[in-house]
Amino acid sequence: MKRTEINKLGEFGLIEHLTSLNKSKSSQQTQILKGIGDDAAVYKISDTHAHLLTSDALLEGIHFDLMYTPLKHLGYKAAVSNFSDCYAMNGHPKYMTVSLGLSNKVSVEALEELYSGLYHACHAYGVELVGGDTNASLQGIFIGITVVGEAEIHKITYRNNAKQGDILCVTGNLGAAYLGLQILEREKKLYLENPEIQPDLDHEEYLIKRQLKPEARKDVIEHLHALSLIPTSMIDVSDGLSSDLMHICKQSKIGAIIYESDVPIHIKAQHRAIKFNLDPITCALSGGEDYELLFTISPQDAEKISKMPDAKIIGKITYAEEGIKLQTLGGQLHKITAQGWNHMQ
Amino acid sequence: MKRTEINKLGEFGLIEHLTSLNKSKSSQQTQILKGIGDDAAVYKISDTHAHLLTSDALLEGIHFDLMYTPLKHLGYKAAVSNFSDCYAMNGHPKYMTVSLGLSNKVSVEALEELYSGLYHACHAYGVELVGGDTNASLQGIFIGITVVGEAEIHKITYRNNAKQGDILCVTGNLGAAYLGLQILEREKKLYLENPEIQPDLDHEEYLIKRQLKPEARKDVIEHLHALSLIPTSMIDVSDGLSSDLMHICKQSKIGAIIYESDVPIHIKAQHRAIKFNLDPITCALSGGEDYELLFTISPQDAEKISKMPDAKIIGKITYAEEGIKLQTLGGQLHKITAQGWNHMQ
Repeated sequence: MKRTEINKLGEFGLIEHLTSLNKSKSSQQTQILKGIGDDAAVYKISDTHAHLLTSDALLEGIHFDLMYTPLKHLGYKAAVSNFSDCYAMNGHPKYMTVSLGLSNKVSVEALEELYSGLYHACHAYGVELVGGDTNASLQGIFIGITVVGEAEIHKITYRNNAKQGDILCVTGNLGAAYLGLQILEREKKLYLENPEIQPDLDHEEYLIKRQLKPEARKDVIEHLHALSLIPTSMIDVSDGLSSDLMHICKQSKIGAIIYESDVPIHIKAQHRAIKFNLDPITCALSGGEDYELLFTISPQDAEKISKMPDAKIIGKITYAEEGIKLQTLGGQLHKITAQGWNHMQ
Repeated sequence: MKRTEINKLGEFGLIEHLTSLNKSKSSQQTQILKGIGDDAAVYKISDTHAHLLTSDALLEGIHFDLMYTPLKHLGYKAAVSNFSDCYAMNGHPKYMTVSLGLSNKVSVEALEELYSGLYHACHAYGVELVGGDTNASLQGIFIGITVVGEAEIHKITYRNNAKQGDILCVTGNLGAAYLGLQILEREKKLYLENPEIQPDLDHEEYLIKRQLKPEARKDVIEHLHALSLIPTSMIDVSDGLSSDLMHICKQSKIGAIIYESDVPIHIKAQHRAIKFNLDPITCALSGGEDYELLFTISPQDAEKISKMPDAKIIGKITYAEEGIKLQTLGGQLHKITAQGWNHMQ
């Protein structure tokens, strides 16, 4: 019997392949505005409004390491990363369910911590936890989160509507969560080598917090609304700028140029990258887990973006044949490829 | 630090405990008709309609054994068991997402089988698969399924509205899925002892199919609709008749009597139970995974139930103080307790 390894296709190729096997179409088809292939699925609930549906699973040993991840933060991050998917569609998260798999090493007190993080996130973002189930697991913890959000249909931002000439924008700053992870991994390694050693985390709170307790950009969606600014496309930066921009480019059939000089990198991230012998721009391009919003706007909306308190222009949209390029500080153009996380490899 | 083992609370006690920790209420509260504690969460999408939201996770080694579970059937069952939760609310499933965790033993061809079962179920029940994500897993397969359904608000059946004097009904027959599982477990044991042995599955197709490829009772919901019959409460039989009836009794604050003579048990299930030295009624009470519908109706609807092709009266609702009792063939009343599955023990 034929056997093809999953990593031959990669995560995105695999989903594409499995989706292509579906030959039947249900009567729901007319209400579905977007199926597989965006931050969330979208289906109409009325003539003016749609719901957003997104599910994610976090697995111990793959997505998180309990050695340096407090369960309360883990719960918070698990919820917030799904809320971020709703914001990336220009909508708001409303309802959440949680499915847990728990090995017998998990105590009730540990679960209380995890749930306290989940509730804290729900409270901060105005989401209600409406369902949950718990299961035994033979090994490790897994957390499955589903979030339902809501959006006005005419405001929903997909990945496939960016146009040549559009302006590329991003919120906040990039690469910090990745550098936070590197710090935690370094401390873990040092601790395993010598459990007596004291962690050296002075002045690293910002980067570590970006990794362990990220926030989703609800405020950005509110600012877009206040400015009557509807991006032509949007995605949240979960896999890394280059990988997430690749999704927009592929689905919109366009190319893009990123201006290195304009990519926002926090000063602490810059310093930390250099101390780690890493190139700051590489951390920003490939880091992931920043949960910032990457979006494109029409050129006539350029002035509005200057009124957004925490968003900036970092590039422009070109033709598909141009691919994705980085215009370096020296003015040269370098072709870049997605180096985002691929858990399947 | 205090450590309480999860099995001290049990699955239902654990969910209750964790839910009680949530002190905050969001502005979504007014749209939520049911949060945690029924087959699905329920929230309004208009004045007349609501959506149903249900999530479940299936873990290898806990919920399924790949030694005798074909992946295609596993996909089918994973989907159907969630559809069943929507029918139990007197609604219809519409949209589904799938989150997978895959160890590297899983090939693309194996996943194609799993997805073929998922698509087959979606096609059979008119549901659309709108989202999915795949993740690496260190050990074993897990399948997280979320289903969104829809229902007319005035028709939604909860667990907490059965009244003293109501009539207790069930669809189809009970215990068959449990006996199918016993056959498969016996064959596995024999095979492990002697791989040369030929499986003895003659005349067992019905019971095995009830275990491996169950169906949800979409037809029953359609019959209820045609008869303008709205049950006062409803649940699907996933944990076993006694355990699921216990949920209705606890939430409705009522008791119940089950007439042993009227509990439907398939003739093949009766024969197989006796061959296994099991009491058929015990299999029906405690078996689980039948995905039949257990519901209560008002006494004035008694005549309508006789027009339902595959539903029958099996008992009546009494006062809470009476508890749940089985009226045996000999006419005696025996108090029964939930012996449904508890994965957490």
